[in-house]
Amino acid sequence: MANIKKLEESEVFKSYFKNLTDRERAVFEGGITLGALFHQFVGTPVSLNNKESLEKAIEEAMKNQPCVEDIEVKIVGDFEEGKYVSLTGEMLNVKLKIRVNETIAILRLRYIEELDYPLMYVEKIE
Amino acid sequence: MANIKKLEESEVFKSYFKNLTDRERAVFEGGITLGALFHQFVGTPVSLNNKESLEKAIEEAMKNQPCVEDIEVKIVGDFEEGKYVSLTGEMLNVKLKIRVNETIAILRLRYIEELDYPLMYVEKIE
Amino acid sequence: MANIKKLEESEVFKSYFKNLTDRERAVFEGGITLGALFHQFVGTPVSLNNKESLEKAIEEAMKNQPCVEDIEVKIVGDFEEGKYVSLTGEMLNVKLKIRVNETIAILRLRYIEELDYPLMYVEKIE
Amino acid sequence: MANIKKLEESEVFKSYFKNLTDRERAVFEGGITLGALFHQFVGTPVSLNNKESLEKAIEEAMKNQPCVEDIEVKIVGDFEEGKYVSLTGEMLNVKLKIRVNETIAILRLRYIEELDYPLMYVEKIE
Repeated sequence: MANIKKLEESEVFKSYFKNLTDRERAVFEGGITLGALFHQFVGTPVSLNNKESLEKAIEEAMKNQPCVEDIEVKIVGDFEEGKYVSLTGEMLNVKLKIRVNETIAILRLRYIEELDYPLMYVEKIE
Repeated sequence: MANIKKLEESEVFKSYFKNLTDRERAVFEGGITLGALFHQFVGTPVSLNNKESLEKAIEEAMKNQPCVEDIEVKIVGDFEEGKYVSLTGEMLNVKLKIRVNETIAILRLRYIEELDYPLMYVEKIE
Repeated sequence: MANIKKLEESEVFKSYFKNLTDRERAVFEGGITLGALFHQFVGTPVSLNNKESLEKAIEEAMKNQPCVEDIEVKIVGDFEEGKYVSLTGEMLNVKLKIRVNETIAILRLRYIEELDYPLMYVEKIE
Repeated sequence: MANIKKLEESEVFKSYFKNLTDRERAVFEGGITLGALFHQFVGTPVSLNNKESLEKAIEEAMKNQPCVEDIEVKIVGDFEEGKYVSLTGEMLNVKLKIRVNETIAILRLRYIEELDYPLMYVEKIE
């Protein structure tokens, strides 16, 4: 329906973000979504049996967050048949697209071997 | 493959549970799975758009846990078009089937209005 | 005050557990608490700086759960100065005391090297 | 020791953030920390007995995150003696100070009644 508005489109909501440029807003919202995703799902039991349904559920859940236009989640690792592990940050490979007006930010969460750390960073802003 | 064994079928694993009857083991494993499910997923963004993929992902993730034979998860609540909320324990309606040898326990997590509390309990043991 | 009753002492609450022996109830509640603890806190940033406050907060939070009489949480691992990691199940060493009437169950969560798995089990019931 | 460097001070780490201004970096890191905090701790059992230890543990855990200079967490709500609830986003009142070189950003997470939503926003950047 034409008059169903998302929370983020309300004037009150918008008033809290007037002090940010579109680029700043985009990386702020992207940061929230990456931090949320990591800390919500790390610990979840994962195996070959549920890897795909978990990837999909993470993507779909995160699309609810303000300004998320698209998101791709891959759970990477050597899974053994018949064995499950707890999801860790190191296993997450995420590509997140945030839109604020005409600004698009592409953000990443992925394990960086050189740092031995699952890094969240901004790949590009257009 | 016939010789792929789940962790829970190893002799070392089993040795830790020799002090429990099958009934006790069943409710112990059921308790773990209900506690795990609640505290893993509460907080997840949920709306009409991702309710089903989240229900499915919770079910599939929890089937990895030892002794879980089946599980049904329903997320209940009045969802408004275009709005998302954080998943709460009150929204979870879970039916869990645990098997230990010939013993089957049916466990529940659901909101009990009289208690104003999302209760975990054992519905029956057979 | 004498007439402040905990939820778990209400007759409605108790009515859901009439089908369990005290031993069964004890291991059920113990299982819930261990599953809850693991899946609530795994992922938390932890370093030498906050190890103790996190251990204490986990203990105090879990004492709210029904039938928990006492709990001891140790976070184990080689922490490097100036570096933090995400809490994993392998780092948790938990001793949990559950009371149901006169029955006391001691439960454990700890990493078992032979299994390469953070195991939840019942150490003894008295 | 003078030569213990935090991860975020390494050249490899820094190289991932060369495309951001200090302001952008500050709100990005602030967003991550707020999203992380919310989704890590929502669901934790909380009562009058453990409110303070939980507030402290959240603060101390989040100080590990890159660029966090200070953080104040208050858990707000009407707690009844002898009763516990699951922590919700609505109960969180957070003030977060992020530093990137000379830029300081103050970020907030708090429940906004008009929106009926626990909002994360940037209060000011200096």
